[in-house]
Amino acid sequence: MRVELVSIGNELLLGQTVNTNSSWMARELIQYGIQTSRITSISDSRSDILNMLRETGERAEIVIITGGLGPTSDDITKPVLCEFFETDLILDQGILEHIKSLLAIRGVEINDLNIRQAEVPASAHILHNAMGTASGLWLEKNDTVYISLPGVPFEMKALITDMVIPKLREKFPFPEVYYKTVITQGSFEAYLAERLKTFEANLPPNMSFAYLPSPGIIRLRIGSAGDDAKKLERAVNSQVLKLQEIIPEYIVGFDDDTLELIIGSMLMIRNQSLSIAESCTGGAVSALITSVPGSSSYFKGGIVAYSNEIKRDQLAIDRSLIETYGAVSKLVVEDMAINTRLLFNTDYAVSVSGIAGPGGGSSDKPVGTTWIGVSCKNKTYSEIFRFGDNRERNIQRASVAALNMLRKLIISQDMIIDSN
Amino acid sequence: MRVELVSIGNELLLGQTVNTNSSWMARELIQYGIQTSRITSISDSRSDILNMLRETGERAEIVIITGGLGPTSDDITKPVLCEFFETDLILDQGILEHIKSLLAIRGVEINDLNIRQAEVPASAHILHNAMGTASGLWLEKNDTVYISLPGVPFEMKALITDMVIPKLREKFPFPEVYYKTVITQGSFEAYLAERLKTFEANLPPNMSFAYLPSPGIIRLRIGSAGDDAKKLERAVNSQVLKLQEIIPEYIVGFDDDTLELIIGSMLMIRNQSLSIAESCTGGAVSALITSVPGSSSYFKGGIVAYSNEIKRDQLAIDRSLIETYGAVSKLVVEDMAINTRLLFNTDYAVSVSGIAGPGGGSSDKPVGTTWIGVSCKNKTYSEIFRFGDNRERNIQRASVAALNMLRKLIISQDMIIDSN
Repeated sequence: MRVELVSIGNELLLGQTVNTNSSWMARELIQYGIQTSRITSISDSRSDILNMLRETGERAEIVIITGGLGPTSDDITKPVLCEFFETDLILDQGILEHIKSLLAIRGVEINDLNIRQAEVPASAHILHNAMGTASGLWLEKNDTVYISLPGVPFEMKALITDMVIPKLREKFPFPEVYYKTVITQGSFEAYLAERLKTFEANLPPNMSFAYLPSPGIIRLRIGSAGDDAKKLERAVNSQVLKLQEIIPEYIVGFDDDTLELIIGSMLMIRNQSLSIAESCTGGAVSALITSVPGSSSYFKGGIVAYSNEIKRDQLAIDRSLIETYGAVSKLVVEDMAINTRLLFNTDYAVSVSGIAGPGGGSSDKPVGTTWIGVSCKNKTYSEIFRFGDNRERNIQRASVAALNMLRKLIISQDMIIDSN
Repeated sequence: MRVELVSIGNELLLGQTVNTNSSWMARELIQYGIQTSRITSISDSRSDILNMLRETGERAEIVIITGGLGPTSDDITKPVLCEFFETDLILDQGILEHIKSLLAIRGVEINDLNIRQAEVPASAHILHNAMGTASGLWLEKNDTVYISLPGVPFEMKALITDMVIPKLREKFPFPEVYYKTVITQGSFEAYLAERLKTFEANLPPNMSFAYLPSPGIIRLRIGSAGDDAKKLERAVNSQVLKLQEIIPEYIVGFDDDTLELIIGSMLMIRNQSLSIAESCTGGAVSALITSVPGSSSYFKGGIVAYSNEIKRDQLAIDRSLIETYGAVSKLVVEDMAINTRLLFNTDYAVSVSGIAGPGGGSSDKPVGTTWIGVSCKNKTYSEIFRFGDNRERNIQRASVAALNMLRKLIISQDMIIDSN
């Protein structure tokens, strides 16, 4: 079974939009055992769209197309679909009513462009778009199903979940698949690969294993496809257990876990609270923590102490400490953590002070040098990291490292309580 | 001239990695007049890679391939390239020395996997990867140039800029292109499209116009290709001037401008400073501001006042104000801006308090309700926004709206000084 995803839009080929839609769809489809074979982006041109419809029809049973359904004149997917499927564009009264009611809620008058959104290829089955004005379309030719969806992410997502997946599962028998992703922090791909050489060599032949690196985090994905869901799950999980034995010190979570979600649930279960003091990460650690719905139940707040003046005035860091050791130092970052924890009256605090770059480095403390501190009632400590010379990645890697230090501190406190 | 970008990696087809490499390359190539025709992601499988090499060879003059060059066993690009180009994998002593010296800097011992990184197809021209261990490869077959690069973003980027573009420009005559992007904030695509209907209809036929929406920002891209660079630039810019006449109130910048860059250079020129108080955006506004290199010269810091307790204790917001009007209210957000400006001793402050969702909404203040305040010595004011029901987008849109209010306040202060 071949499934291809096609995104239409000049903005993709100009690189002005990153194709996050296809990644999301691929991720969603795999949950239902539907593996994507190819992802393609093409331009808003008649000939490119027609070629793609022909090509994918020869290769794939399912083609999901996004984009080009908007109201503006560069959106030409619908007329080209009509040409390929030899049908006409007709005004659908049901869709028109839906558009009118959506606009009424927003308090907007209907215009010609909105009305064009109600036009669809006559032979298409309509996939109702509850969230927006551009309907999804389901068309078939020979043995291929073509599904055309709007490119607006939240509309596309609702259509995939509510309309496309149920209809695909009705029509096709999909194999069972099972994937498990092990999330690691604190190592490098080549180092992990060396440690896992024997593990990899001994994997059963029907099992896949991949390294998925991103700044600060390497995910290891084990997967298998077959007929028996339970059996697949058991086989994959037994390999995960082996990984947990080989590299326990690097594993921080599984599947869709993120450090911010893991920390969030740990704090919520323990009914504990958190505050954050950031310098070089400039709010990025707080933004990660607050990206989690419900984070207000454990995150009280933080200070972005970007200047030394603010470190002194808002965080009561001793002026002489900054003058003697510099703002990027063990003593300053530890005081930042302690003082923030006391000031915000929280159980935990994490602090970051580093040189994100490109400026500010010295031979002693080159760009990328970062101190991270964590503090709770029983313990305050810090670690120094030497990241690279790229500002954006330094901020990402420092944020991830800070969250992982916090995670370890929270876990260590459970052990203290247990041993009492 | 057809250029295609191909990314190899199961992680792309599983949606576990977003294909940002291709977007970056497309954006970079367009600067040199090289327009991408198609972007494709395929799996790490021999047959998929071979099919893609064949197919793209029939369609394109230039094929840039990323990924699958890593040290782990799922990276099979090199042997498959050897098969397609009918050549052998040989150990390159120069690359091996380079790898050894890179590892020495990192204090790491060379292992078997690292040595495999020095193996390259015998007929390939080597593109030296100063940043990493996987070399770029330049191979030719019939009339197509194939360029294979590592998928690690910063290594790929350095190779494209330093090696690939100069070599491509040597070999091919590229047309001149000129693009200008107008960045707008505060409107909707359908509304802008209606306002720009006549403008669009009157565009010269060789000129392209596209809407590129993202949360809170709609970019309008005007472009043209031809022989005479100066002429193209004049023609496109004359259309930009027309846009500035039709929708002046929505235009915030051009091309690669971002609100955070615009604000940064405005504050730097004026030698003024900024502080930020955030509630629902949780550090996202500060993170945007500090994503700009050199932001420490105007951004002193901020407070993430996520809980009411912190709003009260750290920002001196009157308890009775919060009790009477709620934390998401005009008076609270204005006091947050004023108090932060005074506390941090800055020229400007911006504050955000809203309900990001999914919880916390009421019939009176549904999820998405957000108050944003700005303050300087002469003026403090606030606006209410009603965003949607998606937490992530609400945070993004609130951040963008906050920065735009700040931008307008800074501009308005110039007028006051001028009129004195």
